Amino acid sequence: MLEELKEIVFRANMELPEKKLVIDTWGNVSGIDRASGLVVIKPSGVPYETMKAEDMVVVDLDGNVVEGDYRPSSDTPTHVVLYKAFPEIGGVVHTHSPWAVSFAQAGRELPAYGTTHADYFYGNVPCVPGLTKEEIEAGYERNTGESIVRHFAKLGIDPMAVPAALCQFHGPFTWGTDPHDAVHNAMVLEVCSQMAVHAEQLNPEIRGKHIPQEILDKHYFRKHGANAYYGQTKK
Amino acid sequence: MLEELKEIVFRANMELPEKKLVIDTWGNVSGIDRASGLVVIKPSGVPYETMKAEDMVVVDLDGNVVEGDYRPSSDTPTHVVLYKAFPEIGGVVHTHSPWAVSFAQAGRELPAYGTTHADYFYGNVPCVPGLTKEEIEAGYERNTGESIVRHFAKLGIDPMAVPAALCQFHGPFTWGTDPHDAVHNAMVLEVCSQMAVHAEQLNPEIRGKHIPQEILDKHYFRKHGANAYYGQTKK
Amino acid sequence: MLEELKEIVFRANMELPEKKLVIDTWGNVSGIDRASGLVVIKPSGVPYETMKAEDMVVVDLDGNVVEGDYRPSSDTPTHVVLYKAFPEIGGVVHTHSPWAVSFAQAGRELPAYGTTHADYFYGNVPCVPGLTKEEIEAGYERNTGESIVRHFAKLGIDPMAVPAALCQFHGPFTWGTDPHDAVHNAMVLEVCSQMAVHAEQLNPEIRGKHIPQEILDKHYFRKHGANAYYGQTKK
Amino acid sequence: MLEELKEIVFRANMELPEKKLVIDTWGNVSGIDRASGLVVIKPSGVPYETMKAEDMVVVDLDGNVVEGDYRPSSDTPTHVVLYKAFPEIGGVVHTHSPWAVSFAQAGRELPAYGTTHADYFYGNVPCVPGLTKEEIEAGYERNTGESIVRHFAKLGIDPMAVPAALCQFHGPFTWGTDPHDAVHNAMVLEVCSQMAVHAEQLNPEIRGKHIPQEILDKHYFRKHGANAYYGQTKK
Repeated sequence: MLEELKEIVFRANMELPEKKLVIDTWGNVSGIDRASGLVVIKPSGVPYETMKAEDMVVVDLDGNVVEGDYRPSSDTPTHVVLYKAFPEIGGVVHTHSPWAVSFAQAGRELPAYGTTHADYFYGNVPCVPGLTKEEIEAGYERNTGESIVRHFAKLGIDPMAVPAALCQFHGPFTWGTDPHDAVHNAMVLEVCSQMAVHAEQLNPEIRGKHIPQEILDKHYFRKHGANAYYGQTKK
Repeated sequence: MLEELKEIVFRANMELPEKKLVIDTWGNVSGIDRASGLVVIKPSGVPYETMKAEDMVVVDLDGNVVEGDYRPSSDTPTHVVLYKAFPEIGGVVHTHSPWAVSFAQAGRELPAYGTTHADYFYGNVPCVPGLTKEEIEAGYERNTGESIVRHFAKLGIDPMAVPAALCQFHGPFTWGTDPHDAVHNAMVLEVCSQMAVHAEQLNPEIRGKHIPQEILDKHYFRKHGANAYYGQTKK
Repeated sequence: MLEELKEIVFRANMELPEKKLVIDTWGNVSGIDRASGLVVIKPSGVPYETMKAEDMVVVDLDGNVVEGDYRPSSDTPTHVVLYKAFPEIGGVVHTHSPWAVSFAQAGRELPAYGTTHADYFYGNVPCVPGLTKEEIEAGYERNTGESIVRHFAKLGIDPMAVPAALCQFHGPFTWGTDPHDAVHNAMVLEVCSQMAVHAEQLNPEIRGKHIPQEILDKHYFRKHGANAYYGQTKK
Repeated sequence: MLEELKEIVFRANMELPEKKLVIDTWGNVSGIDRASGLVVIKPSGVPYETMKAEDMVVVDLDGNVVEGDYRPSSDTPTHVVLYKAFPEIGGVVHTHSPWAVSFAQAGRELPAYGTTHADYFYGNVPCVPGLTKEEIEAGYERNTGESIVRHFAKLGIDPMAVPAALCQFHGPFTWGTDPHDAVHNAMVLEVCSQMAVHAEQLNPEIRGKHIPQEILDKHYFRKHGANAYYGQTKK
């Protein structure tokens, strides 16, 4: 079942080592079939070198395995929470990419310091506070998802406008319209994190201050929404 | 038309991912045919993996498309402003290369800290202040070009002696005698930005102070101008 | 003798340049056959490009060569001390990987700043103080091993829970259940060191403070021990 | 003439881009035939991609071209000064490798912060002060060499024990027993510079203080001199 989505999710997972966003078996990508409400996700701890499209695991929105020879990623409960809370997303990614993780370990949001950021994220990428002991014990991975959803709601951030979160002590989760788009956002987040470390080092006065709103608007909306004029018109 | 220039511009664009100056579809290179006043430029948002020489777009110096199946790069108005204002240049490049962007996001010029810089840029690479809200609304990309031209005029910098600008909040634009030369300057700018970050870190006292004028003169003029003695004599 | 272990140790050594953990002939991996008490180790100063499985050297637990055409790695006495003191380990690695060496040269332990670290190291990776002049003269490599063993005992650290040490002024030693696992720990140590440098830079207040104990517990024990649920069930 | 040395010098030059020590046409390697007193050196400004062994230029110890179709490297006068002053060296290298250049631009020597450094350099790598205006005008490249020789003499450093110099504002020169050895020292210098930047960042108290003398002695002399025991015995 869902063979086409398995292929898409498999290819999106393979992009992670190709783009140097993960090493070893770290990281995972999933995609959802909204019609059936089923999620296709990477198996847990399987090496990228030998992984195949048919190794992808199908789970329902409660995280129960529907099809597959392997256990799904241990982060599956986080993915399904995001799919349930954010109805417009089609793909979710988790990585331990080093520059984004540095922000997460520092417990800091990633400010929108430039147009590279503004082209993809309409504002700062929030840092979601670490879970309490009770939350960890009651269901770590599920509550990781819930903490992202709660933090976005609290800050009033549209998850489609800022498709990324930095989980404190942990690392980035990103999402997008489909699995590939979610991987792309993971890559942009990593590059913007690297640029932000050095921009702050070169000028500590910018720390925490995002670019003027009109530049954020200009760059975000020339790529997104009804008046976008970047790229080619879709036929 | 301009098939040879299309090939040159195409190859110069392909140098950007090869030299790791861009990821995704970011970045663009153009070249000008001064005889006809026509500019050849990368199409907007087309992936490097599938791009071909015939996909290059021909525009006039007002940015109107003269030939091509695709929309030209959304930065086209910036390119044509530079071609009109700087009559000696033959190629223009825009990238989001991470070290140069860090300087742009920090809102700082790149000081000439060493001979690597002096071999290609005769002085500091200026940081062009971000546009006002009015300038953004009246034509963001055109005014990006105008702001570069105005800033160089204000500082009295010869654009052929310092063929690069760091646009605040945004990133680098470079130019050169031809498209390949402009890409080369983009690469030198990136490496010099990286060296500058760490040189300042190792010795904060050098911050903002460029190398002695006589070393700047020596290195720049051993590669440029009538008395150059680097490289081979052109036949 | 021990041809299978030679192949395993050879392959683990070849992982070092592949994963960019060493350059030149730097670094060495060994493995032990606990039944015979014999150790297989890389020869000293042989280039990776031409090294073959049969070049591996067999030594006993006093470091005497039992078989091999080459001298064993000059770090052999360190390896055998670790095998004698830590009976559960099956492989040992030494590298000069740049980020981990930076911590060793700084004379600092690597704090557990995040879940990437906690997935493999149950707590901070200690920095073992440099040897005294007397220790250096009495047997530098042997005493390097002894200093690691002594420091772990002093701090009460289980070497299987934190399979890595940073030797001051020098660099990292890691170990594991087998040679490949030891190399994997060397790679994780390197990535975590890189993340730690930038996390501290982004937020100096975290310096020296590891993540909450409950997160350390959660991540370490979801991958290790009786209740682990990461990866696939071994058949 | 000197066809074998041309091949050796050519291969050593090709190692520079392979080891990412140079980009573009930057950097140059030479080798000397002590019997004839002739030096073989890279031609000036020729791309690495198309360079061949027969393009190497032969010069005498006054820098006069003896054989070759091209102009020799513009840094030739520096090389010949070093060959004349340091009679034991067989190869000289100049690069603009980014981490070593950062130290040179900072105007700082590279302290011996660890055993990676001590394995190849018996002490700090000095920073040679920038030339005066008079020295630049009287012969920039020759005086660059003279300034290195003078600075080593002033500090009483044996050029075979510390086969590297950081020329202020400029970058590294390294040398060795032959061209390949000189390239190897350039690579070690680059890696040690990278490690030093981050070691200082992690612990500013180590700044400028090299490792204990007994560790410097131990590591240097286990690889160099009559009592060396690293590597294999030469047959």
